Amino acid sequence: MTPDRADMGILAGLRIVELSAFVAAPLGGATLAGLGADVIRVDPPGGGIDIDRWPLHRGRSLYWAGLNQGKRSVTIDMRSEAGQRQVAGLITAPGEGGGIVLTNLPVRGWNSYEALARLRRDLIMVVITGDRAGGTAVDYTVNAAVGFPWLTGPEGYEGPVNHVLPAWDGMTGYLAALAILAADRHRRLHGEGQLVELSLSDVALAVAGHLGLIGEAILDPEPRGRFGNDVYGTFGRDFATRDGRRLMTLALTARQWSSLGAATGLTAEFAAVESRVGADFRKEADRWIHRKALCEILESWAAEHDLAEIREMFEKSGVLWGAYQTPKQLVAEDPRASIANPMFAEVDHMGIGAFLTAGSPLRFGAAQPVPPRPAPVLGEHTDEVLREFGL
Amino acid sequence: MTPDRADMGILAGLRIVELSAFVAAPLGGATLAGLGADVIRVDPPGGGIDIDRWPLHRGRSLYWAGLNQGKRSVTIDMRSEAGQRQVAGLITAPGEGGGIVLTNLPVRGWNSYEALARLRRDLIMVVITGDRAGGTAVDYTVNAAVGFPWLTGPEGYEGPVNHVLPAWDGMTGYLAALAILAADRHRRLHGEGQLVELSLSDVALAVAGHLGLIGEAILDPEPRGRFGNDVYGTFGRDFATRDGRRLMTLALTARQWSSLGAATGLTAEFAAVESRVGADFRKEADRWIHRKALCEILESWAAEHDLAEIREMFEKSGVLWGAYQTPKQLVAEDPRASIANPMFAEVDHMGIGAFLTAGSPLRFGAAQPVPPRPAPVLGEHTDEVLREFGL
Repeated sequence: MTPDRADMGILAGLRIVELSAFVAAPLGGATLAGLGADVIRVDPPGGGIDIDRWPLHRGRSLYWAGLNQGKRSVTIDMRSEAGQRQVAGLITAPGEGGGIVLTNLPVRGWNSYEALARLRRDLIMVVITGDRAGGTAVDYTVNAAVGFPWLTGPEGYEGPVNHVLPAWDGMTGYLAALAILAADRHRRLHGEGQLVELSLSDVALAVAGHLGLIGEAILDPEPRGRFGNDVYGTFGRDFATRDGRRLMTLALTARQWSSLGAATGLTAEFAAVESRVGADFRKEADRWIHRKALCEILESWAAEHDLAEIREMFEKSGVLWGAYQTPKQLVAEDPRASIANPMFAEVDHMGIGAFLTAGSPLRFGAAQPVPPRPAPVLGEHTDEVLREFGL
Repeated sequence: MTPDRADMGILAGLRIVELSAFVAAPLGGATLAGLGADVIRVDPPGGGIDIDRWPLHRGRSLYWAGLNQGKRSVTIDMRSEAGQRQVAGLITAPGEGGGIVLTNLPVRGWNSYEALARLRRDLIMVVITGDRAGGTAVDYTVNAAVGFPWLTGPEGYEGPVNHVLPAWDGMTGYLAALAILAADRHRRLHGEGQLVELSLSDVALAVAGHLGLIGEAILDPEPRGRFGNDVYGTFGRDFATRDGRRLMTLALTARQWSSLGAATGLTAEFAAVESRVGADFRKEADRWIHRKALCEILESWAAEHDLAEIREMFEKSGVLWGAYQTPKQLVAEDPRASIANPMFAEVDHMGIGAFLTAGSPLRFGAAQPVPPRPAPVLGEHTDEVLREFGL
């Protein structure tokens, strides 16, 4: 282990072996690595099934580079018994922060919880599956099942609209990382390890429940449909500016509503609607019910102003808003996506080049931030790790 | 504390005071409560700004009911000094699992980290903001900034397409819960508390980085645009069935691709395209590049079969797929969203009624699952908590 890795980050001392592919498990590992844990991803020689996932640059995967930041990479042929013994030895190596494995790949035989727990009694294993029953499912199939594609997209559009952000993978990855810390706490308190399981589909269903969608689907004879970019139950939508940009603005609270009126000079026009329809726009529900009338007024107003003007007016008045940006505009124009944001640094990714790279979004007052790090080159740490653990 | 709360769940013994509204912080708290932590949400009398958020049923918020499951609810007037003293006393009450506060509301003066840490030296405080600099931002404004609305939605559509799922809130909530466990670990090891900060915008930017979008936006002169429901860089899209349903199917791996051919009987037709265009469809990139030709074939095939037939064929052959369901179809047809899934139970929510309610999607082998619980009634535990902590 390189000395700069020790004593850095809030999770220094934890060691996780990751057998993974795609998003959820690698993101869970990258999250822990970004907080100072020693995360060792083990792949077959040549790489796992996600080694070449798009987007690519110079033939290398930016996706893999992003999802494996800060880890060590070991390649071992796990089809051979000798390779299986090495990986089992790595997972179950001694040390109070070790004995932790995170995976979304099939576990059976040599890498089952039972087999590995025979080598280390207090093993912690976190297994992510697609479906709870172990069936294959991915973010996009789970999202289709939960119903969001029928609620997303332009009003009047006929088909389902998939999200592009693999949101369920993201949440599942973070929950898997949380599960490791919960199991580590339990092991410190009670000395025992455990198998922890979670599935993408259960995460999506639980979140749909937390947001009220499952209750609504059961209790409401006609649950909500598709409302375009309107944020359900409140005031919030996109508007086009004179210079062809778009902005999102919301008024979730009475105060934000009054700021929006003040910033745009539309308070009187809004009040005229209010008395015409007999509503009270301090109430969120009334802003939602009468949103069409309100949006028409704001639509005309936005079309008469450039984004830069609006930015100045809105920021002065505490309006809740944001400009839409393409990814190119984000990195070109937004200081939050630049080295002015201490979360970011220019990092050289071997074979890809240097580019703006994020560290952990979590800032711990009592620990050093771990500087943003690139992903390893595949197999970069094989010799180092095998030597370190005497395998 | 009711006796059934003790000794249940992997996080039994942790106590978190939550000062919150909307999604991220309440979801973080609900996640910890779902694992057995004692989470006490403190609101002003009458409720916080999210008490009436839609969807509603019988005039009560299903959203609030979902996001506050399993917590205790205390109402205290925090505008009065006496109220501030009570809440500060609750947050900093002794006990090794206590002294933890989670918030997304403004912290200054009496509830600042400095003020509270004077009352309990090892205080852990996790603060979620909109922007890193403390500015107001919500899921929908952050999403607009990061670029996903320009990548989401029907190909050829002109405007931005918002997600309906507040995905950044979800990820931020889970990360905040993870932060509490990381800080608790640090406190056990080193005896010190700390302030932990995170912002919605940093979470979104970090995830965009992990997924390769930021690197792509910087390095690629023409980064990706909008591809409708096609999953970027692979084979995956929605298809309409004969009976008017939709399904999502993907082939991320060579094996899934061969299963799809076998299940549909289209192997030869796919091979004909393969030799005509000179591609190798075992390769993900080739399936992506030639997806239009492949999708046309599958489109015709799907249009000749009902969903039930396809389900039978696909499940037999290990195809990676899922049916699109509206939320109503989800709760009516999908056994994963029923009490056949042990994550769920029929739970009576006071004033709303009984409906299918999820517990934690995490299953810990070494701890009891906490049964799904309703949210408290606002203020339900005020007297109980004030008495318990001698406030």
